[in-house]
Amino acid sequence: MLKLYDNADSGNAYKVRLVLAHLGLPFERIQLDTDSGETRTPEYLATNPNGKVPAIVLANGDVLCESNAIIFYLAAGTALLPEDNLERAKVLQWMFFEQYSHEPNIAVARHVLKHLELTDERRALVESKREPGYRALGVMEGHLADRSFFVAEQFTIADIALYAYTHVAGEGDFDLADFPAIRGWLTRVSRQPGHISITQP
Amino acid sequence: MLKLYDNADSGNAYKVRLVLAHLGLPFERIQLDTDSGETRTPEYLATNPNGKVPAIVLANGDVLCESNAIIFYLAAGTALLPEDNLERAKVLQWMFFEQYSHEPNIAVARHVLKHLELTDERRALVESKREPGYRALGVMEGHLADRSFFVAEQFTIADIALYAYTHVAGEGDFDLADFPAIRGWLTRVSRQPGHISITQP
Repeated sequence: MLKLYDNADSGNAYKVRLVLAHLGLPFERIQLDTDSGETRTPEYLATNPNGKVPAIVLANGDVLCESNAIIFYLAAGTALLPEDNLERAKVLQWMFFEQYSHEPNIAVARHVLKHLELTDERRALVESKREPGYRALGVMEGHLADRSFFVAEQFTIADIALYAYTHVAGEGDFDLADFPAIRGWLTRVSRQPGHISITQP
Repeated sequence: MLKLYDNADSGNAYKVRLVLAHLGLPFERIQLDTDSGETRTPEYLATNPNGKVPAIVLANGDVLCESNAIIFYLAAGTALLPEDNLERAKVLQWMFFEQYSHEPNIAVARHVLKHLELTDERRALVESKREPGYRALGVMEGHLADRSFFVAEQFTIADIALYAYTHVAGEGDFDLADFPAIRGWLTRVSRQPGHISITQP
């Protein structure tokens, strides 16, 4: 059975749980406490030398890391990932956008505000995420203005990748009031059959 | 003909030029000066709302952004991208690693040192990139210790994605002296038939 190195509060790990739920795939869930350094032990670094969750271990022992690579692997051959090369590349475009322009701002602000003591330095870090975070949300809002989903008018792993931290952006003090297209899309994603919440055990 | 929105000094844009060179594909090259804001004009934002290079425009007018999504699209069906789903996902794993753990440290330090006036704030920014940048290089070094290339012992777009900023890491004041496996791999990549340098017009 597939083994998932997981963290209950991580949006990156939630992407994998959400795809597994949509596909109805059973898995063994191993929770690691990232705050207390459980992803930096010698044992875990032997599994993922980059010291992050999520990572999956396949039945044959192969390890795959990086949330978006994992969900690409799991979704191949399913309705969550188009077969067409250009549509597939557009799914990847939004997933790379998520990891470069969205997550380092919105998820990092959320992490600091939820998990760490708010020193002056950390407050400045959070504030430095405000402008690029809202810029990323603006790019999403413009794209969704006349679309139901990010790519090919179908629900794909691009939506799952971007949903993970957008739906909890408020926990990073990002206000979605001025982003009606994003709010409509969040509702559509959450109403997909098979959807689970980030807190589902 | 494929149109490439490009910047001569960008490693991200170089990835695309390098794949196009390996595949022998002709293209129209449009240089944008990122330092003077040419990627933030209303005209360019209509092409790429995220305001970055590279972006490509296909013969049918479709636009694709994000360097690693572009090279995935171009490499599909060629020897630069394995067909096997797990190998393909491992290629993506290293490309997401590149955009999250490598580029934001090594490329950003290089950009500041090469392009911007070195204020105290920017000096502190560069110094903050030192530890995570070397950590990313350490992950690469460990992986390459007993491998010729990143995935499946063949030259793929994972190598191209990681080569782009690793081979100019010295310009960000990263010293590769203690990374012999990386240095050997850089040489192997640069000796692939069809290779071009980042400065090739």
